[in-house]
Amino acid sequence: MSIVLGDKEFFPSVPEVSYEGRDSDNPFAFKWYDANKIVAGKPMKDWLRFAGCYWHTFCGQGHDPFGPGTQHFEWNASSNVHKRATDKMDAAFEFFTKMQLPYYCFHDTDLIDEENSSVADFEKKIEFITNYAEKKQSASGVKLLWGTANLFSNPRYMNGAGTNPHFPTLARAGAQLKIAIDATIKLHGENYVFWGGREGYISLLNTNMKQEQDNFAAWLHMAKDYARKNGFEGGFLIEPKPMEPTKHQYDFDTATVAGFLNKYGLADDFKVNIEVNHATLANHTFQHELQVAADNNILGSIDANRGDYQNSWDTDQFPNNIAETTEAMLVFLEAGGLQGGGVNFDAKTRRESTDMEDIFHGHIGGMDTFARSLIIAEKIITESPYSDLRKARYETYQSGKGKEFADGKMSLEKLAQIGSEVGEPEQISGKQELFENIVNQYI
Amino acid sequence: MSIVLGDKEFFPSVPEVSYEGRDSDNPFAFKWYDANKIVAGKPMKDWLRFAGCYWHTFCGQGHDPFGPGTQHFEWNASSNVHKRATDKMDAAFEFFTKMQLPYYCFHDTDLIDEENSSVADFEKKIEFITNYAEKKQSASGVKLLWGTANLFSNPRYMNGAGTNPHFPTLARAGAQLKIAIDATIKLHGENYVFWGGREGYISLLNTNMKQEQDNFAAWLHMAKDYARKNGFEGGFLIEPKPMEPTKHQYDFDTATVAGFLNKYGLADDFKVNIEVNHATLANHTFQHELQVAADNNILGSIDANRGDYQNSWDTDQFPNNIAETTEAMLVFLEAGGLQGGGVNFDAKTRRESTDMEDIFHGHIGGMDTFARSLIIAEKIITESPYSDLRKARYETYQSGKGKEFADGKMSLEKLAQIGSEVGEPEQISGKQELFENIVNQYI
Amino acid sequence: MSIVLGDKEFFPSVPEVSYEGRDSDNPFAFKWYDANKIVAGKPMKDWLRFAGCYWHTFCGQGHDPFGPGTQHFEWNASSNVHKRATDKMDAAFEFFTKMQLPYYCFHDTDLIDEENSSVADFEKKIEFITNYAEKKQSASGVKLLWGTANLFSNPRYMNGAGTNPHFPTLARAGAQLKIAIDATIKLHGENYVFWGGREGYISLLNTNMKQEQDNFAAWLHMAKDYARKNGFEGGFLIEPKPMEPTKHQYDFDTATVAGFLNKYGLADDFKVNIEVNHATLANHTFQHELQVAADNNILGSIDANRGDYQNSWDTDQFPNNIAETTEAMLVFLEAGGLQGGGVNFDAKTRRESTDMEDIFHGHIGGMDTFARSLIIAEKIITESPYSDLRKARYETYQSGKGKEFADGKMSLEKLAQIGSEVGEPEQISGKQELFENIVNQYI
Amino acid sequence: MSIVLGDKEFFPSVPEVSYEGRDSDNPFAFKWYDANKIVAGKPMKDWLRFAGCYWHTFCGQGHDPFGPGTQHFEWNASSNVHKRATDKMDAAFEFFTKMQLPYYCFHDTDLIDEENSSVADFEKKIEFITNYAEKKQSASGVKLLWGTANLFSNPRYMNGAGTNPHFPTLARAGAQLKIAIDATIKLHGENYVFWGGREGYISLLNTNMKQEQDNFAAWLHMAKDYARKNGFEGGFLIEPKPMEPTKHQYDFDTATVAGFLNKYGLADDFKVNIEVNHATLANHTFQHELQVAADNNILGSIDANRGDYQNSWDTDQFPNNIAETTEAMLVFLEAGGLQGGGVNFDAKTRRESTDMEDIFHGHIGGMDTFARSLIIAEKIITESPYSDLRKARYETYQSGKGKEFADGKMSLEKLAQIGSEVGEPEQISGKQELFENIVNQYI
Repeated sequence: MSIVLGDKEFFPSVPEVSYEGRDSDNPFAFKWYDANKIVAGKPMKDWLRFAGCYWHTFCGQGHDPFGPGTQHFEWNASSNVHKRATDKMDAAFEFFTKMQLPYYCFHDTDLIDEENSSVADFEKKIEFITNYAEKKQSASGVKLLWGTANLFSNPRYMNGAGTNPHFPTLARAGAQLKIAIDATIKLHGENYVFWGGREGYISLLNTNMKQEQDNFAAWLHMAKDYARKNGFEGGFLIEPKPMEPTKHQYDFDTATVAGFLNKYGLADDFKVNIEVNHATLANHTFQHELQVAADNNILGSIDANRGDYQNSWDTDQFPNNIAETTEAMLVFLEAGGLQGGGVNFDAKTRRESTDMEDIFHGHIGGMDTFARSLIIAEKIITESPYSDLRKARYETYQSGKGKEFADGKMSLEKLAQIGSEVGEPEQISGKQELFENIVNQYI
Repeated sequence: MSIVLGDKEFFPSVPEVSYEGRDSDNPFAFKWYDANKIVAGKPMKDWLRFAGCYWHTFCGQGHDPFGPGTQHFEWNASSNVHKRATDKMDAAFEFFTKMQLPYYCFHDTDLIDEENSSVADFEKKIEFITNYAEKKQSASGVKLLWGTANLFSNPRYMNGAGTNPHFPTLARAGAQLKIAIDATIKLHGENYVFWGGREGYISLLNTNMKQEQDNFAAWLHMAKDYARKNGFEGGFLIEPKPMEPTKHQYDFDTATVAGFLNKYGLADDFKVNIEVNHATLANHTFQHELQVAADNNILGSIDANRGDYQNSWDTDQFPNNIAETTEAMLVFLEAGGLQGGGVNFDAKTRRESTDMEDIFHGHIGGMDTFARSLIIAEKIITESPYSDLRKARYETYQSGKGKEFADGKMSLEKLAQIGSEVGEPEQISGKQELFENIVNQYI
Repeated sequence: MSIVLGDKEFFPSVPEVSYEGRDSDNPFAFKWYDANKIVAGKPMKDWLRFAGCYWHTFCGQGHDPFGPGTQHFEWNASSNVHKRATDKMDAAFEFFTKMQLPYYCFHDTDLIDEENSSVADFEKKIEFITNYAEKKQSASGVKLLWGTANLFSNPRYMNGAGTNPHFPTLARAGAQLKIAIDATIKLHGENYVFWGGREGYISLLNTNMKQEQDNFAAWLHMAKDYARKNGFEGGFLIEPKPMEPTKHQYDFDTATVAGFLNKYGLADDFKVNIEVNHATLANHTFQHELQVAADNNILGSIDANRGDYQNSWDTDQFPNNIAETTEAMLVFLEAGGLQGGGVNFDAKTRRESTDMEDIFHGHIGGMDTFARSLIIAEKIITESPYSDLRKARYETYQSGKGKEFADGKMSLEKLAQIGSEVGEPEQISGKQELFENIVNQYI
Repeated sequence: MSIVLGDKEFFPSVPEVSYEGRDSDNPFAFKWYDANKIVAGKPMKDWLRFAGCYWHTFCGQGHDPFGPGTQHFEWNASSNVHKRATDKMDAAFEFFTKMQLPYYCFHDTDLIDEENSSVADFEKKIEFITNYAEKKQSASGVKLLWGTANLFSNPRYMNGAGTNPHFPTLARAGAQLKIAIDATIKLHGENYVFWGGREGYISLLNTNMKQEQDNFAAWLHMAKDYARKNGFEGGFLIEPKPMEPTKHQYDFDTATVAGFLNKYGLADDFKVNIEVNHATLANHTFQHELQVAADNNILGSIDANRGDYQNSWDTDQFPNNIAETTEAMLVFLEAGGLQGGGVNFDAKTRRESTDMEDIFHGHIGGMDTFARSLIIAEKIITESPYSDLRKARYETYQSGKGKEFADGKMSLEKLAQIGSEVGEPEQISGKQELFENIVNQYI
């Protein structure tokens, strides 16, 4: 990948980041991510399909509930909305190419400032910036992993978009949704994402949850039908999150989403985009959410970041916990990877990390963490007794009466008869500590 | 209900507990629970169908991970297993009748000590004690709300029962399951409950979650088929819980269970039994879980208790938070009550509450809390603007284009067109503070 | 209290809110707060000393991490910074007087927009607006419960103010601190508050915690010495909070603050300002924090609000849980109330509550909740067996050998001798369920 | 260390565990713990001073609130209480010596079954088993890191021991305390530990917290005076824990304990024993608790284990998270290690880990995790820019006006003057992502 600059270089102090190996002391080199290295039969880059995200990295400047942003972005300098948008895109593609990121992701409003435009004006703005994006994608080879619409920041969506109690507001959201789908198709986006945003409730007292969920299903069907009719062949992705900004987000976790998709006949087209920090907010591990998705055949994509284990809001820190990510990559590899998605860094530098270089540090650390974990996981699966040990625990269901039961062909009378005759069953240790030691041996 | 004693009176200091009204200072009187008082068209007792539970009240003596039980139960004095069982049942029915509890619930092993019996011997024990139970039920009029099997305490079930990785252990559990179903049918139990127990995992590393969940679905189908074949017409209830004793319980919450039931074709026969403390362990409110169940038409029964909002394990305290219960009873009444179940006190006196009278205090407080909340909720619904305010929020979906959308008959093109024309939609306050004040006005 | 308006009336639809009693259906009337009603020997208003807060009610417009504010404030309409400030103050005093709030509280930057002013310019702005405040206070009789400096929103304070690793930044904060103390003295503020803001760490890796805490102690000594020298006789208040915005706030909870004050010789001048939502974020109940403060003789003031029991960030909702507040008021009354402080509503209407009237609903609900709890708590203490039951549990320490031990005059040898002779001590029930029923009887 | 067996070998399948290096596939070898390897100037074993614990490893058989123990211990086979005790001790010393554990720890009641003995009889039992322990210590070279009394399991202590509301119960606890201190002195224990047990409250409603905490201070003074008078020169250790089994444990966290020790004049003799899982239950990281202890000069000892990040009770799993432990060992090394304590494995194999070998797997994994982290931390400190980067953040306080402020010699007037003149201070990035990458580079 060659570096693609615009009129000016926004990150002049950082050269292209390349793989130098684990003994390098260069903070701007990968120690583990070696894009073309073969792992489990194919290049790392094809397993991971890393993506840069537009919002945290090029739009969010570090504001939090207690203060405004701290980070100064040169690409915001122009007073002209179109120039700001192309400057930002130049910065973004400079970053993607310096970081060897093959993909990127955006919300519609990340690309160009909305500024309370009318629907028609906003559509024109999006047309302008997607024209520019086509050129940048073409020049760089960077592709669009997924697009989405920001239907939660504008005050009009304070009570939700696809679940808004007021139909005119929902319709206004629909106009924006259509533009975002069109933009995604135009830019050959490989997926289209629905993150719940404010699709949930703040108080159950004033909420008709059933009406809102039924409406949301209608909303998704409508979007899917439209996109398919217009040639979109990619995946639709729901991103689970249990809470925040609402008290309760309807897409609480992967199991909830899987149930929703089945209930409303959406399971053939929709998968999940699993975010690490959303998993832990839901009192799950990241690997649990991956496993639930894999078992339901809906493991679409990943939003890579990490939460804080003591503070329970969405901190969106860069992933760095090698132990956590290794256990996740075990599930990932056993599931055969992702279904059409990639690993998008929905992560932001801390509000106190105000050097432009910090954005690189964050992504380098995150990419190395995933790359290293992938390498470790492959070794655990292929070189250690891990897989055999786990398989052996379930071998009684592979044949004979156990299989008959598992296939749903045994009555309770028969099972009880077997149970009466078996006497006290053998006690079999779960050997969790041994499993854990094996994992650690390969880290 | 007249008091039914056995050979001896186990709670001689406590007379029948009756309704004396809110000005009574008698700690052994109901201040709010007036069984035959009409609320929302039928007697309180028919809405609430209170049940006493066998395990916490007559078996559990207050042990915790840091020490053994503290509570001395006279009914455990005999060295004869059958005498202990009938004494315990005498104590239980004395309690139920003194407390005006129309129902009770049990695990098989609550009724009589298992003592590592063989399947055949355990079946004989259960036959003995259920014969005795038939007489006590008949004498008292107390009925069986539900039965269940304890498939989690015995060490053999350490890795689960219906999800055990080892088939012979699962079969052994099947033998016990059959006995418990038979006992429930024999005693005219109105429901049969599956609480997950150890159906979950301690470590994902050594677990094949998909195999275990598929097995669990086979297990439930098998149980249901057997029970139906043998004349059981009651409800099957799954009791959601997110964790504890396992790291992850498969029946995490109501949404997860609803998805599971649909996925495996069990939704026609199975509903949920929602426990307050399990709801809060899953990061939900009690009322949320009730609403999810109601919206999925699976609101079967309730396990009444409360958790501690700061400590995240299952404390099973008696319900006493009038604010929390009132919000729950709003959902309860709007759902038309429970589908075949009742309000079972899955609650225990504290380990430090060692007087026999404390069991009465706990239940009196709990029953009064639910009764008072029911009265309040009815008033809110019938006398206050609460229902109208909420309904008005959704009125745009009751007709015209809003209804067309909600009915799934509108394309995104058309919706977007409406959204383009609508201009900036009206801002409509959610008025949460007003809703909350209305609720408090009626407490 | 008579209503004090400025040039225009900002809340024309709301008249003065007065007490109408619990049967009133008027949403703009108090159902419980009857300012001059005598409770436990003095008027309610003197126990509670309610205060309106400037920031949430007149500055914060509902922004959250996922979107900007939604609430439109007419007092922000002017393009002139001084006019905006006086309009805002007019609105504030209109609100205080319509709500019968005898006190108010502010951060320096709430009063007038900072706009990146130099220290000298900001000082002039504060002089201007405090001159205006003197007039408004005089016209209305509303007094300043406490002032404070906002040393956390401006990006310059991203790494803390009194704990900033960089001395020039700390000095810049010192300049602002001095202005805020001067303003508080000028307006006869009864207290001066230090809320930690960003005094804590985001990552321990880059933090010298000891240096920062030593600096913070120097900072507080310096502030106290300055204020005392300039005639301030009020209380200094530290406001505990465990986390947010930082990962770890140094003023984690009341016990931590008490230890800090003792360690650094600050305990004679500093007390705590306890916020309900901060208590629950620290895994404590509100009443626990009050009790710790009372036991350490530092119960200064209260920030009234409530958190969400399932979501762990600072939601600052209005208090409405009568059960929670009643238990808190038991501690409050037994401690003899607050030492110089009051009950300040550090609470905000939801982002979705966009009607101006919603601000009134929130405060009415909150004031009624505290007032009602105060009435209930007095009754529990004076009419019920609650106090005697608790006292009786500890009577063995009031005389004889128990007292000798409690007075620290007994050796282990002697105690062990007594323990050897005592045999198995009597088992005494904690009777928690009875205590809980007594509380509920009076709600 | 040579293996010390009793009459029989309890773990015949496991030989002495020795260091084989990270490429070994032997599950019964250390991959990282090389006892005599020099790290940061002294042998690993002298930094870490690993200890085996008696309770989890030789007493606890895996019971939890939902079922009894699952693990079968041969040393419990005898019906003779003294034989059981010596068999257990034989097993323990076999384990300690096979594992190269230089230390062990116990509660009095771990050593020999209490069986509701009178004080006099229990004292005789302890005399018997400590005589035996003297021989085993002598034969093996294994030393006693600390002793303690179990004052929480026996039902008589249900309302606390040193904080019990009833003096006779407290006196009974005093008799047991004296025996435990005597035993610790006799066996040359290097420390004596107080873990809170049930020193806290279940309900604030029935609790006089101040009386209980004052009593607890008297209790500790008394114990210390007795031990010192009888020649004990070791450390007294308080073990913080926020909750469980009580709702609120008085020794909530290290900051709380530090404040308590200062308030009651105990800081010269008492330090803390920090447990990883207790830290996380208190919403702190392990490294945070170590840092607070180091900053207060009370970093006495460590209880090594780990909690579950999603489930909030004390799971006491073996430590295995290399990222977490590395950050802890950075603090540990910078603090100069522990003050008189060691690293005790207060960890238990899972209830499902029923092979005797699993105990070895758990400890091997835990020891390797700590050893590896120690090695990594030393490298980070000595080879990377980590220490310099952190030091540089605070350099403005090392001299000049910054130092004057930090030394408490500057007035607010002067500081404000500096702040006025400084203009807008330089923005300095916290560079958290870079710090994190440096740590990961060395893992």
